[in-house]
This record gives sequence, C-alpha cells and structure tokens, in this order.
Amino acid sequence: MRPQEIIAKKRDGGELSAEEIRVFIDGVCSGEWADYQISALVMAIFIRGLSQTEQSELTRAMLMSGETLDMSDIELPVADKHSTGGVGDKTSLVIAPLAAACGLAVPMISGRGLGHTGGTLDKLESIPGYNVHLSTGQFKSIMKECGFAMMGQTAEIAPADKKLYALRDATATVPYIPLIVASIMSKKLAEGLDALVLDVKTGSGAFMQAFDDSRRLAEAMVETGGSFGVKTMAIVSDMSQPLGKHVGNACEVYECINILRGTVKPAVQPTLDLSIELTAAMLRLAGVSEDDAEARSAIDDALSSGRALDVFRKNIELQGGDPRVCDEPKLLLNEKLIKVPVLVDRAGFISAIDTFAVGKAVCEIGGGRIKAEDGVDYSVGFASEVKIGDKVGAGELIGFVYCRKAGDAESAVAKLKNAYEIRDVAPAAPELIRATIT
Amino acid sequence: MRPQEIIAKKRDGGELSAEEIRVFIDGVCSGEWADYQISALVMAIFIRGLSQTEQSELTRAMLMSGETLDMSDIELPVADKHSTGGVGDKTSLVIAPLAAACGLAVPMISGRGLGHTGGTLDKLESIPGYNVHLSTGQFKSIMKECGFAMMGQTAEIAPADKKLYALRDATATVPYIPLIVASIMSKKLAEGLDALVLDVKTGSGAFMQAFDDSRRLAEAMVETGGSFGVKTMAIVSDMSQPLGKHVGNACEVYECINILRGTVKPAVQPTLDLSIELTAAMLRLAGVSEDDAEARSAIDDALSSGRALDVFRKNIELQGGDPRVCDEPKLLLNEKLIKVPVLVDRAGFISAIDTFAVGKAVCEIGGGRIKAEDGVDYSVGFASEVKIGDKVGAGELIGFVYCRKAGDAESAVAKLKNAYEIRDVAPAAPELIRATIT
Repeated sequence: MRPQEIIAKKRDGGELSAEEIRVFIDGVCSGEWADYQISALVMAIFIRGLSQTEQSELTRAMLMSGETLDMSDIELPVADKHSTGGVGDKTSLVIAPLAAACGLAVPMISGRGLGHTGGTLDKLESIPGYNVHLSTGQFKSIMKECGFAMMGQTAEIAPADKKLYALRDATATVPYIPLIVASIMSKKLAEGLDALVLDVKTGSGAFMQAFDDSRRLAEAMVETGGSFGVKTMAIVSDMSQPLGKHVGNACEVYECINILRGTVKPAVQPTLDLSIELTAAMLRLAGVSEDDAEARSAIDDALSSGRALDVFRKNIELQGGDPRVCDEPKLLLNEKLIKVPVLVDRAGFISAIDTFAVGKAVCEIGGGRIKAEDGVDYSVGFASEVKIGDKVGAGELIGFVYCRKAGDAESAVAKLKNAYEIRDVAPAAPELIRATIT
Repeated sequence: MRPQEIIAKKRDGGELSAEEIRVFIDGVCSGEWADYQISALVMAIFIRGLSQTEQSELTRAMLMSGETLDMSDIELPVADKHSTGGVGDKTSLVIAPLAAACGLAVPMISGRGLGHTGGTLDKLESIPGYNVHLSTGQFKSIMKECGFAMMGQTAEIAPADKKLYALRDATATVPYIPLIVASIMSKKLAEGLDALVLDVKTGSGAFMQAFDDSRRLAEAMVETGGSFGVKTMAIVSDMSQPLGKHVGNACEVYECINILRGTVKPAVQPTLDLSIELTAAMLRLAGVSEDDAEARSAIDDALSSGRALDVFRKNIELQGGDPRVCDEPKLLLNEKLIKVPVLVDRAGFISAIDTFAVGKAVCEIGGGRIKAEDGVDYSVGFASEVKIGDKVGAGELIGFVYCRKAGDAESAVAKLKNAYEIRDVAPAAPELIRATIT
C-alpha cells in the first residue's frame, strides 16, 4: 500500500482501516514514510476527522509501535495519573508517594516542561542527584521496592508519538482531540496499568482553554482507555490560575514536600485538595478503596502518619537523589537568589489571571523551555500570594519573582503584573474540580 | 510570519492574503519552510480550497519566484501552445514550425514524459544531436533566427513549482485545479507571451479524464492568463484514443515530419487537424490573422509551400540536430527493431480505448518513464492502425509494437489488446474538438 493511496483516502474524507493505520504508523517508525507524507496525512486527518474506531486503532498502532511494560508480576493494583499540563501543576509529586503509601503500584512515566507548562522530570531533577534516566528493569525494581518510580519516556515506548508530535508542532496540527488522545493514551497504555486517572486542565493556563474542549478531550480519553480494558476516569480541573503557590521547579518540589510533611499554608491548599481528589479516584478505580470516604480516610492516614513522606524519601534514595530534602525542604532552595516583589497598581479584587502569561514569565527568567533543546534553571520561580477573588490594595504584593540577577526579572515582573486583572467587583472564585468523567 | 500561522489559517478555511502566499512561496524557494510544512499547507489548500484571488496570487508568487523571459525586443507577436499531456500527443512539433512560418515568435519551454504521457523534450532528443539544454540567451537567439526555439525548464524559471510538484506527487495532492493552474501558468507566463493557447485533454488518456473537470481546468487557466494580461484561450480536445498513429518518441517525430512534408495518411489526419486548429487559434489570438479563414489559409500556404518544413529544418540545425531527418524521415527509425503485431480476438467495432493503458504499455517496453530519473528508449513505440468506430474482423490487426527483443513485447501486446474494447454495435466516433474556451 503506497503512502499516496492512504493519504488520498483520508484527503477525500474516507475512513481508514485498522490495516491502513498500522501501515502508516509502521511507516512513521521505519522511516518508510517521508516527513512530508506524514504531515500531509496528519493535516488531512485534522481537517477530515477521525471516527472513534479510527482513533482507537491509531492509539493501538502507536502503542504497538513500541515496548509495553509487563506488570503481570506486580501483585498490587497498578495505577497512574496523567495531567494535560498547566502552570504550577505539581500534583504528581504528592500523588505518587501518597497513592503508593495507600497500596497502589505507580509506574509514572513523565515528560519535561515546554513553553508555559512545567514538566515532572524537570521538577524531580531539581532534587540534587535525582536520576530519571532508568532502564525499564530499574524502573520496575524501584517501583516494587518503594511503591512508585519516576522516569522519562524511553525511545522504546510509543516511538511513533515522538516523531508525530514534533511534526504536528511544526505544522499547526496539534490541537485536534483524536490526535491528542492517541498521543497521550499510547504512552499511558504502555505502562501496563489496571487503572488510569486523567487530570484534564481547563482555563487560561491550560492547553485546551475552553471548558467544552477540555471536557470533550476528557470524554474521548476515558472512552479510549476503557476500550483497551483499562479502568479510566477523568477530572476536569481548573487552570484559570496557577495551582497552589509556586511556579518553578525546585520551589514546586519544596511545596510538595511541605505538603507531605503536613505543612499546608492557605496558598498551597489547592495543591493538596487536587492531589487528594486524584489519589482518591485512583484508589477507588483500582479497587483499593470501596468508596470515596474510605479512600479519603486512607489518604488522611498516609499523610498524617508520615508514611507518604517516607515513601518519597525512599524513592529519592533509590533514584540517586539526596533524601535530606524530605527533612529539610529548604535545601531545595537557592539562598543566593534575589527576591523581587510584584506589586499591583490599583486596589480591587483579583478578577482573572492570564495563567499562560504567568507560565511564560517564569519561562523567560530561565525556569522553562521555549524550545525542547533549551536548558532550564531549576532554582528560579514565582511565588504567588493571591488568588482569584482576593482583595488587594493599591501597591500591595501579589507575589515574588526569584531570580539570579535583579535585571533578569524586570520584564517578567511587568508581565506578571499585567497577568493579574483587577476589578472593583468581587468575582466568583473558580471551582477547583470542574467535572468528573467516568 | 511563522509557517504555522499561515498553515493554521488555511487549515481553518481562511483566505490567505497575497502577502501570506508570497511568504509561503519565498519559504519554499529559500528552504526556510521545511518540506513537511509545505506539504501540510498544500494538503490544507487541497481540502479547504483556494479562491480565484488566492489562485492568481499563488500563480503570481510562483512566477515571481524565478526568472521571466524579456521578449520586449522581439518585433513579432510572441505566442505559445501548451498541452496538459496525453498519449501520442505530438502537436508541438507541427505547431511550432507552422506558427513560426506564419509569422509568430514561439518560445516553447517543454517537459519530459512521465508515466503514461510523452514529453516534447524526449521526442526532440530522438533527433540525432538535438540539444534542448539552452541558456535563455541561446534560446532567444535561435527563436529570432528561425521563429521558434525549444528547451526544457531551467532551474531559474518558476523554481517553486519544481519543489511543489515533487511534494504534491508524493502526498496525493496533484489533482486539484487551482494548484494545477498555478503550476502550469507560472511556467508559461514566464515566457513573456502576448498570446497563449491551451490544449486541455479529456478522456481515457488524459490527466483529467472527465470532460467537466477538463473544462473547469481550461476555464480557470484562461481566466488566470487573462488576469496577467496575456491573451489566452483553451481548446478541450479528445484523448479518448491516442492522437494520430504513433505512440513513442522517434516514431512521433517521424509522423510530424511526414505531416510537414505533406504526407498525411488517414491514421495521421487527427494530428494534423488538431495542429491546424491550435495554430489557427494562436494566429487569431496574436492578431496575425483577422479571422479563422485567414488563419487557415496562411497555414495551408505554410504547409503546401514547404515553408513550415524549412523552419523546422533550420531549427534542427540551430539546435545541433541532424537536419537530414527532414528529407529522409526514415533516418529517425531504428531498422533493427522487431515489429510485433497486435491482433484482436473477436470481430466487431472498436467501441472504446483505454488510452492510459496504451501509454503505460509503451512505457513498459522502455518508451517512457515510470519515475522521473528513469532512462527512455527513444526508438521503441506503438503504431495504431484503428480508431474508435472502426470495424475489425476476428484475428485482424489493430497495430504494431516496435521493440528490441521479441520477449520485450509479450506483456505489452496483451495489455494493448485488452485496451481496445470491441462491441457489436458501432459507437459514435468522438469529436476531436470538445470545447473552445475564450
């Protein structure tokens, strides 16, 4: 089957067979399909659409294009959480040890930050010595020993996705739900899960900003997960403001370890609330807890007893990191950084936050990547002191930028100030959990 | 303007501005746009469509991407004919000397054969010594001296087209009229013409087989030519059977020189008829002849006086070829070839011919190219002895295959036989001229 025949079929609005989709993905992996043929088909898919069957077959072909983890020898239920990404979205670092402490095995394969969003791998690497480059053997063995393991995607898992994503990014074909579903689910399904909880972000800092788009993405992923025999549910959560207090790498880990240590200041509460919500969903879905009350009670116990923190400490040790950060979280912070206040001009209520701009501002001071190959300064970041609905006076503080030199922050501070909209009337505070899709 | 922004606009059905189209074509030529970005936009254009304005701007940007010939110092009216390609379609070799003998300057930039269709450059190269690789200076000087010149497209003329066509061919985006129009017209308009006559083929051997598609293509090209200030008309001509008698390279030149010598057997008559029709259109359009009768009278005179043959002889001399072929056309034919008859099984009327299959059969014995980089055996070919509507008896001859070894022809002979459909009832013979678009 020549690439042109398959391309022409979708070009004219036809439905591709499982075989045609397999030939396409095989061609992507083998290099038999040229990049320009791949991008032509992807554009035709974007415009003409994929049916639910085609979407499932694309996910299957992408999944089967690479290695899948064999979890058949793991006695505990195997579960994971995946987020579509946001600003200050750090829940993985709370959820993984917490879920493990409650009796789940959590094989968490994560990504790096790009553009305005952070990435779990970058956050973990801000822990001195922490190694995310594991073989699948090491990965499983660490998970067996402490309940969870964290690593980056290997070249062997869903290799078609890496190539497809790079081409989609360069050809304006990223924001199409069936392609997003296939990209996310082909990687997650390779983890050999029993249960998967998806955290689909919505709002100004989310990849899909409109609630209806976020919900449709959540529904499509839940349906696809189910069709592969994995218990799947999704929560659509608010990303109309940064999650919790910190945006950055080291400072986000700092926030999470403080949560595991039981130190939860009001600005940090949403991070804990969303982490509990998602962990409870994992426990229920995997059958560890009968109902929500039982799940929340188990979570309370794992947190208050310090078991979740112990699991994280053990994981850090096993992955080569410095476990002292669990006892002295300040070790994560670079004391030499300059702290630049962000002040508002006028009095009023915080009515909206351009969360995308907040993410970009942190990226600009070195805390994130503009291009995939950029380096990241793990130490810098932004600590937000206010949330939507808060009342502020003229000249009052909304947060601090942490950076290396005073000049570094100038433009970022201006952008952050502009990102916070202030009005005279108090807005309704956004709900953290916008929808639950089962 | 990033490629992604322009791609996304067309992806969502927007109309591209002249500036955006220029940025795209500049990016194609400079290499700033990657092949996969070009093919993504071309697919979006194919599916979403181009308006008449966008089509004109695309043609203009492609034309302006390269060199255009300056014909301001040519005192004669400058005119050309372009055909969309077919099987046995050899009229250029009659029209160029004939139009020149009637007082036109004809700068004919031609192509090579590919797939089932032949190409003028290949036919010319079957004349021993004939050189189609000219500088534009040589090209103009030969045209000035004998009235016409023939060469291949240079890298300097519409360079965007070569790259775009190769990508379209590999990504199933060739058959879309506005892209075809931009491709053809950007090259033809670079010739600095006063008048252009287009021969759009229709039927089983044409690129666009359906009459309505052919007519729409003709209309779009006439409109585009006019919008660039070039007097343009189109004839939609029949390609439901090979044109004239011969299909091949040397044998087609042989047919044309015989026509210029006044030797016109019945099987060859359509080649002459179509050549006269197109030349007459060029003479009228360029203002050399007042009306059709005057044009035909001038053509009659140029043929019967031998002036058209003299112009061809002079051109062959100037382009390095052996002019003796004009006096002894048999010199073109390789006497060592084997002549294999193609016989029909049953009696009846030739009711239809799969002309595409005839072209492919000649390609298969070496007379054409499957891929652009293939070599061509100029000597081989097919001489057709029957036309649609002719009555044949069982075992009767429909034509001869000329090839180098007996074994070479076996499969081609079977395919040729199958290409001729025989029925009991006489069909209506197809009209040679199906439509005229002015």
